[in-house]
Formats: sequence, structure tokens, C-alpha cells
Amino acid sequence: MRVLGVDPGLTRCGIAVIDAGAGRSVRLLSVDVARTPNTAELGDRLVLLEQAFLATIAEFGPDAVAIERVFSQHNVRTVTGTAQAAGIAALVAARSGIHVAFHTPSEVKASVTGSGVAGKTQVANMVSRIVNQPVAGPADATDAIALAICHAWRAPAQQAIDAAVARQQATLAAAQLVVRS
Amino acid sequence: MRVLGVDPGLTRCGIAVIDAGAGRSVRLLSVDVARTPNTAELGDRLVLLEQAFLATIAEFGPDAVAIERVFSQHNVRTVTGTAQAAGIAALVAARSGIHVAFHTPSEVKASVTGSGVAGKTQVANMVSRIVNQPVAGPADATDAIALAICHAWRAPAQQAIDAAVARQQATLAAAQLVVRS
Repeated sequence: MRVLGVDPGLTRCGIAVIDAGAGRSVRLLSVDVARTPNTAELGDRLVLLEQAFLATIAEFGPDAVAIERVFSQHNVRTVTGTAQAAGIAALVAARSGIHVAFHTPSEVKASVTGSGVAGKTQVANMVSRIVNQPVAGPADATDAIALAICHAWRAPAQQAIDAAVARQQATLAAAQLVVRS
Repeated sequence: MRVLGVDPGLTRCGIAVIDAGAGRSVRLLSVDVARTPNTAELGDRLVLLEQAFLATIAEFGPDAVAIERVFSQHNVRTVTGTAQAAGIAALVAARSGIHVAFHTPSEVKASVTGSGVAGKTQVANMVSRIVNQPVAGPADATDAIALAICHAWRAPAQQAIDAAVARQQATLAAAQLVVRS
């Protein structure tokens, strides 16, 4: 399963691509931080991010795009920019017919380190260990990789839950048919 | 001057186009509320909004796009959706090379009614009077028209300020050249 992870941001946006294989093997294909100047107009900054997402999707053809869910931050200005960067990522993925998933920071930390309250350094260390190579760069880069890993590792569990719910609903529907007839 | 006004929202997004002529004459060309189902995926909802903005820009070719500035709302979930809808509008306009401007709710109210704390009904009544026709529909519709009017009426003042600042800077630069020589 190939996953594109996005740590959304207007000034710095982490973009990573991984291949998740059998067991918990993970291969890092690409990691980059897209930057847009805070002196530029908002629309132009979002166009730059759109181009970065489009280029990465065109190059790697991911099966899914995993984006950090924007969550109760206190600064409305920061929330706004983060939400807009996340929105552009979701837009580009949806236009390409690629599945989009959102994961909260604590889900990501828990997936990668085993603890939902792990620090940035702990996440970065575990990410380097999982992809079996040192990952340099700012937290945006390691966070994007962690998001992609979180999605790949949660996806089978999520699919099992979805399948169980669907079976349950089918059983219920069949039972109701019996009651009605 | 032709202005496209956007009252951003994920569930309901007001989109209006006006022509502002000599004096304070305003002609309403189009007003609509784009709706996206809250049961749909975020990416798909943003694609629907993108299509609505693209269609309106293609049909009317506005000189500017005026968007309500997302401002200190308390609910992070609402801020997120509003910011994302505004971001898509800014993205589409920037891609088309159209000037994008943001105006705060109080700027819009002050432009249209003379009071920055005017109520929804007061804004709707003044909008109907300015465009010289009754405007039906939800507040999203009248707010989008009010945004477009606000931009058209503020634009000359803003251009005058920009020109004055540019003149000031030119004078200062010339004075510095004299001092240096």
C-alpha cells in the first residue's frame, strides 16, 4: 500500500510517500517540505501547495492520502492556514479519485511510538527506525512520514471494523425481513 | 468594475456577482448559494465548491474576487470548514490570475449599512435597496452580495491610499539619493 502523508501548513507543509509492505515493513520513497513565502498572497501560496501535491501524486501514484486532522489549536490564524493547506491536499486527492483519510496527532503518535503523548523527538527517532534510515529535516518532514505510516498500519484494522459493521447490518436487515414476512 | 463576492462555507457558500458603475450604482448579475452535503467526504465537498467557483468565473469573468475574512469564531470545527471554503475560492481566483481581497464582516457591514455592527436583516434590507431589487434566499446570499459591494466601494479608496504610499516612498527615495550624492 502506497500512502502519501501530509503534515499541513501554509509556511511549511510536510509531504512524504511510503510503501507499506508485509508485516510492518515500510519503505520511504520521498519526503519533502513545501514552503511558501508569507509575503505572498494567500491564493498564490495555495496554488504553490496545489502544484506540490499534484507533482507528488503524478510521480508516485499513491493509493491513499493521509492528512493530519486540524485540531483544537488556540490561535485562529494558525488554524486557518493549516486548515486551508489540508483542504487543498484533500481537494487535489479527491479530484484524482484517491482515498483521503484524516488522523489526529495523538493517533499518529500512538501508531508510531505506542504513546499518544510522545514528543517530537521520540516520533522522529521512531520514524527513522521504522524506515530504516536517518530522516533529516524539520518536524514537518518526520510528521508527514509518521502520518503515512499511521494510515498504512491503521488501514487493515479500519477495514476489518468496516467489514464487521457491514456484516452486522446485513444480519440485522435479514432478521428484519424475517420479522416482516 | 465586476466583483465576485464569496460568503465562504462548506455546507452553504454564498456566491454573487455585481457590476459597480459610476457613483454608487450597482447591478446584480448573479447570486447563488452552493450547497454540499455534510454526509460527503471533505475532498468531494471541496471539489463541488471548486466547480461552483470555476463555473461562475467562466460565466462572468470578474475583475476581482472578494472573500469574507475568517475571523475569531469560537468553534474550531466551523472555522476549519469556513477557512477551507475560503481557501478554495482564493486558489481558483489566483489560478485564473484574478485579484483576491479579504474583508472582515464589520468592514462589509460598515460599507453597506454605515454601521459595523449592523444585524443580518439590516444588511439584507440595504443590499436589496442598493441593487434595486428584492433579494430572496438565506443570509449567505445577501452576505455574498454585500461583500462584492464592499469591495467595489472600498477599492477606489484603497487604490488612492496605495498611490499616496507609493508617492511618499518615491519622494523619500529621491531625498535619500540627494543626501548620499
